[in-house]
Amino acid sequence: MRDVAIIGVGQTEVGEHWETSIRHLALGALQAALRDAAVPRVDSLYVGNMLSGELSGQEHLGALVADFAGLRGTEAVKIEAACGSGAAALRVGYIAVAGGLADIVAVVGVEKMTDLSGADTTAALALAADGEYEASQGLSFVAVNALLMRRYMYEYGYDREDFAPFAVNAHRNATNNPAAMFHFPVTAEGFARSKMICDPISLLDSSPICDGAAAVILAPANVAGALSAAPIRVAASAVGTDTLALHDRRDPLVLDGAALSAQRAYAQAGVTPQDIDLFELHDAFSIMAALSLEAAGFAEKGRGVRVALDDEIGTHGRVPIATMGGLKARGHPVGASGVYQVVEVVQQLRGTAGANQVPDAHLGMAQNIGGSGATVTTHILECMGS
Amino acid sequence: MRDVAIIGVGQTEVGEHWETSIRHLALGALQAALRDAAVPRVDSLYVGNMLSGELSGQEHLGALVADFAGLRGTEAVKIEAACGSGAAALRVGYIAVAGGLADIVAVVGVEKMTDLSGADTTAALALAADGEYEASQGLSFVAVNALLMRRYMYEYGYDREDFAPFAVNAHRNATNNPAAMFHFPVTAEGFARSKMICDPISLLDSSPICDGAAAVILAPANVAGALSAAPIRVAASAVGTDTLALHDRRDPLVLDGAALSAQRAYAQAGVTPQDIDLFELHDAFSIMAALSLEAAGFAEKGRGVRVALDDEIGTHGRVPIATMGGLKARGHPVGASGVYQVVEVVQQLRGTAGANQVPDAHLGMAQNIGGSGATVTTHILECMGS
Repeated sequence: MRDVAIIGVGQTEVGEHWETSIRHLALGALQAALRDAAVPRVDSLYVGNMLSGELSGQEHLGALVADFAGLRGTEAVKIEAACGSGAAALRVGYIAVAGGLADIVAVVGVEKMTDLSGADTTAALALAADGEYEASQGLSFVAVNALLMRRYMYEYGYDREDFAPFAVNAHRNATNNPAAMFHFPVTAEGFARSKMICDPISLLDSSPICDGAAAVILAPANVAGALSAAPIRVAASAVGTDTLALHDRRDPLVLDGAALSAQRAYAQAGVTPQDIDLFELHDAFSIMAALSLEAAGFAEKGRGVRVALDDEIGTHGRVPIATMGGLKARGHPVGASGVYQVVEVVQQLRGTAGANQVPDAHLGMAQNIGGSGATVTTHILECMGS
Repeated sequence: MRDVAIIGVGQTEVGEHWETSIRHLALGALQAALRDAAVPRVDSLYVGNMLSGELSGQEHLGALVADFAGLRGTEAVKIEAACGSGAAALRVGYIAVAGGLADIVAVVGVEKMTDLSGADTTAALALAADGEYEASQGLSFVAVNALLMRRYMYEYGYDREDFAPFAVNAHRNATNNPAAMFHFPVTAEGFARSKMICDPISLLDSSPICDGAAAVILAPANVAGALSAAPIRVAASAVGTDTLALHDRRDPLVLDGAALSAQRAYAQAGVTPQDIDLFELHDAFSIMAALSLEAAGFAEKGRGVRVALDDEIGTHGRVPIATMGGLKARGHPVGASGVYQVVEVVQQLRGTAGANQVPDAHLGMAQNIGGSGATVTTHILECMGS
């Protein structure tokens, strides 16, 4: 097994791109990443996507994107793990390069969610949950998260307003990210008045339905220095899984899949949570941010919200999260988010995160969650030579 | 890179399993393969599937199948490449084991197609084609193949009845395969009278809409002998891609993706078509069988149908194909077919193919096609020690 590095990244602006098809979104991100890496071709392409069949009338994205990007003939396939599809695709690309089966690999995460009605998209997103025990009973995906948040508040004595710092932090950081969907700050007062979506989840607890694509180019670390001025080493790539259905879990308030994924990543990288300079977590809903902080070892059980209340999640805090806006405010084009997270960690480690730069960032972690915690992929990235 | 072997296979009977959910289908095949391999657990699981979101109300099959099979926590993900999803999943599993990122890997191909109406399923299958240039114009997937078959007949002077030997051979072989969907023979006369589906494609040119799952267990070849009485070496695993849309191809009657995939596989295995003892090809429609024979080097351009007419495709012929019934008569649960093909090659190489045994079978090839040739994965399998 050999070391793997990221030699190029690219992303499209997250938003409602009604004028742009899913293949054009993927192309934009992939071309930007290929330009950034300055490589003309790749050995294989992995496309992370959840809902192209349901929302864009198109499966078979691997070959489609390869051909559209001028890579006809190249090995290509689509990887799906619900909202965790992006990082799951990166994981497969990592396996190919680490194992020596490929040298230069492109990974694209893409999702086009705004072409159908909100109701259709909501129904499609429920495909991430257990179809027989959750979705078919009328439980939408936001409702799954609302159950978790309500239980969390009950168990640990929080009010819904205590979750405000997650939204405030994410929106503050997104204002400085040109690729983010939202460029306006929100306040704790605004959060308190926010429209209720699925009690206790309000609009400002929720990531938006949107379109976007992000891409990274991988190469063996030993040649990355020759190919890139600022290669970033993939210090760990790990997956943990859990049940899709909440009722099957050991404890619904513990994301066992996320904990497993993080522990495997820490072991591979030989680091602990204390070594991580920033953590791009899966804040699809603010309850997921809290549970992720706990599962990854940044907070004790029931203390994830406390980390935010104690002002530790800002770019200069103990655990910087959502440093470019997170799923909440950069946006959450589901199959793309896991790749956006990694692109943003690379920006931080390259020192190109502008106003949102985390000081002395050498080690960054990204964790992408499929469903309410059933497929969790964690990547730890590291400045090379650091 | 290390050698990889198949140490266990399993399959469910192909058919219309209205009483069985997609997770139960996958479980049946996976448990059979785990029993065959006599391993209690795996390092990772790759699930090949195309249409679970559209037809079963369930995405996120990786974690779902892992948990349902008692493998909670295990790395798992779904791989999609239209009708080529099964072999595409095997390819990813192969990469993981060959590269040393995993030791024991399970691959399951599964599809559940019969729960919705035929019209809904036909619409879903069109997601394998180009959504903007083919499906959205009303071109169904069978119509894509009908255009190819009509053009082939025109260019090379065949009648539609000349394709009969493909169906006759497949149905003859399926009668001896307990896992096959159809257990009745067909004749050339029956083929000539067969109901027209999409001129010139008749019912007996077409693989059926059906349900099924198949699984294989992979291990490093150097330990496979200790784990299995009859390990089968994966001598090659290769992917080639092409455009989704027919009009974008260099020549619609040449499957460039299949040729590329086969050439890469031959190069990896160090063999030529003459060395292959049997060829499980992608006979979703008889025209695909003909074009596959040509792309893989078993016939000159325009001579694929001639190979069948010359009686060379039987189990004792020069190029045995569809030896257990093929997609045509074993059935074509789309995301599962690529794994069924590999299970059948393993049966042949183990010498357990019963009445359909290909004499002295040492080297077998399976080729699984997504769409009308856009993603093509080829595996060459070999008796170990042979």
